[in-house]
Amino acid sequence: MDKFVIGIDVGGRSVKFGLFSKEGKLIDKSNIVTRVEDEGKHILDDIYDHLLKIIEKHQLNEDNLLGIGLGIPGAILNKSIVQTAVNLGWGRVDVKGYFSDKFPYKVLVENDANVAALGEAWQGAAKDLDSIVMVTLGTGVGGGIIIDGKIVSGNSGAGGEIGHMPFLENALTRTCGCGGHRCFEQVASATGLESLANEYLFNSDEESVLREIDGFLAKDIFEAYKNKDKLAVKVVEEYYFHLARGLAIVSSIIDPQAFVIGGGVSNSGDVLIQGIQKEFVKLCFPTMKDMKFIRASLGNDAGIYGAAKLVI
Amino acid sequence: MDKFVIGIDVGGRSVKFGLFSKEGKLIDKSNIVTRVEDEGKHILDDIYDHLLKIIEKHQLNEDNLLGIGLGIPGAILNKSIVQTAVNLGWGRVDVKGYFSDKFPYKVLVENDANVAALGEAWQGAAKDLDSIVMVTLGTGVGGGIIIDGKIVSGNSGAGGEIGHMPFLENALTRTCGCGGHRCFEQVASATGLESLANEYLFNSDEESVLREIDGFLAKDIFEAYKNKDKLAVKVVEEYYFHLARGLAIVSSIIDPQAFVIGGGVSNSGDVLIQGIQKEFVKLCFPTMKDMKFIRASLGNDAGIYGAAKLVI
Repeated sequence: MDKFVIGIDVGGRSVKFGLFSKEGKLIDKSNIVTRVEDEGKHILDDIYDHLLKIIEKHQLNEDNLLGIGLGIPGAILNKSIVQTAVNLGWGRVDVKGYFSDKFPYKVLVENDANVAALGEAWQGAAKDLDSIVMVTLGTGVGGGIIIDGKIVSGNSGAGGEIGHMPFLENALTRTCGCGGHRCFEQVASATGLESLANEYLFNSDEESVLREIDGFLAKDIFEAYKNKDKLAVKVVEEYYFHLARGLAIVSSIIDPQAFVIGGGVSNSGDVLIQGIQKEFVKLCFPTMKDMKFIRASLGNDAGIYGAAKLVI
Repeated sequence: MDKFVIGIDVGGRSVKFGLFSKEGKLIDKSNIVTRVEDEGKHILDDIYDHLLKIIEKHQLNEDNLLGIGLGIPGAILNKSIVQTAVNLGWGRVDVKGYFSDKFPYKVLVENDANVAALGEAWQGAAKDLDSIVMVTLGTGVGGGIIIDGKIVSGNSGAGGEIGHMPFLENALTRTCGCGGHRCFEQVASATGLESLANEYLFNSDEESVLREIDGFLAKDIFEAYKNKDKLAVKVVEEYYFHLARGLAIVSSIIDPQAFVIGGGVSNSGDVLIQGIQKEFVKLCFPTMKDMKFIRASLGNDAGIYGAAKLVI
């Protein structure tokens, strides 16, 4: 008999559901809107209702459904309890407890960045690897660490929070979402890159195509960089330096087989991977000169893949 | 029938041997000198000869000896092969292969800082914990990471090399043993503390008891700090800041249950633990404010304990 798992990726805007075969084949995918109003108190009910529909549609039952995994944007304890998930309006929520009162299926919960890493290691860019660090360069910097095939969840549910390592010797005046002023994500995220470009523009009179783009984004900076805009080249090279130093720090602690790079910034392509690599070899511990950097391949589906893998 | 294990800690000056019961009781301890001459080619023969003596003395055999673990100061692959161990004069040495040609016992090899961490988690300061980071503050900074009771060895054998994370935004002119100029150990080791004090003395005319001690050591700086020497207070407070930022970086990646602090600097006592803790809470990710910092308790025996635990 075929066995199935369901992976759920709970985001601030939508909840994604994926039905997978035990072997990792995505069979059916669907979405519902995340109702964050009223401190997100409807979210779990909405997920439960939709799960019942999936279970009915695919004739799932205690014999063929191995379990349900959820990725949630917050700190999670014991693969069960969300301590806090700001984007959902949640404080402490016992997600596993909620579902175990409702049906007999195994339910496991993990941080969304951690399950994305697990997804990439299961069926994505790092399919043949079992020790990786996934870094998601978006509005923030997400991190997920897999060692010997297992997520490093951490004692307080904050394993892999590499975006919040106090990376900067000199504190910034602007405050990170976590309250810090030295966070890696303050310089390594898309937002960090944009801030860096704005600083360069403010502190020089150098011509740049960026001066003509009102509210330019990370992708515009990379576009200018590829077109050899001199100021953009300086900005992106400094950005590579920050990224590479951050990843060299992580590597001297974890020494993974590879870094998997995802998120919006990774759409800039091979140029990013090469840029990081070039700086990384100057900064890393000598045994790690051949570190692999791979672009993530599952995109927005990484979360449902990894959430599903949680229960296998 | 009682079962035994042998743990061996191979240092640049002596090789320590410990015979343990399977339950972790140290039964017999002995040492031999490390012959580093001739590129250390006698070391394994010397260890083998001494092992035969221990085996004879305690009537060990294939039935009651579970195996032999070795901690070696270098990068180790697959708990077998030393890639390089500078302090022993070694390049690549297949330690496991050497012994498996000689006798039937299980032999496992690991980095010395990693086995020290394992030792503290098994029978030392972190006996009731299974996810810890051990930091040894000596002439360098050693690191060992245990997650769920297992050493994080790393893909290139350099897991837990936290002394060599490129911690500093601004490169130092002095070069680290690894070739780097931004290493955590350059500011966080006893040597780093001494350099910091020398810089403060050089850059000010402030009176300090340290000016009267020719070639002062880390312990003299702490002594002056405890006696409220104003310059020493500034030096040690900056040192705490570096230490705490480094450990906050590690914690945002690993999120361990505790840090175990060992090495010469840890002899300065509770004042060090309190100093780190006070700075750490300002720098760490919010979920980790209650992080535990514990002084190592096995001292120089941590290595033989951890090496023994490797085979259990």
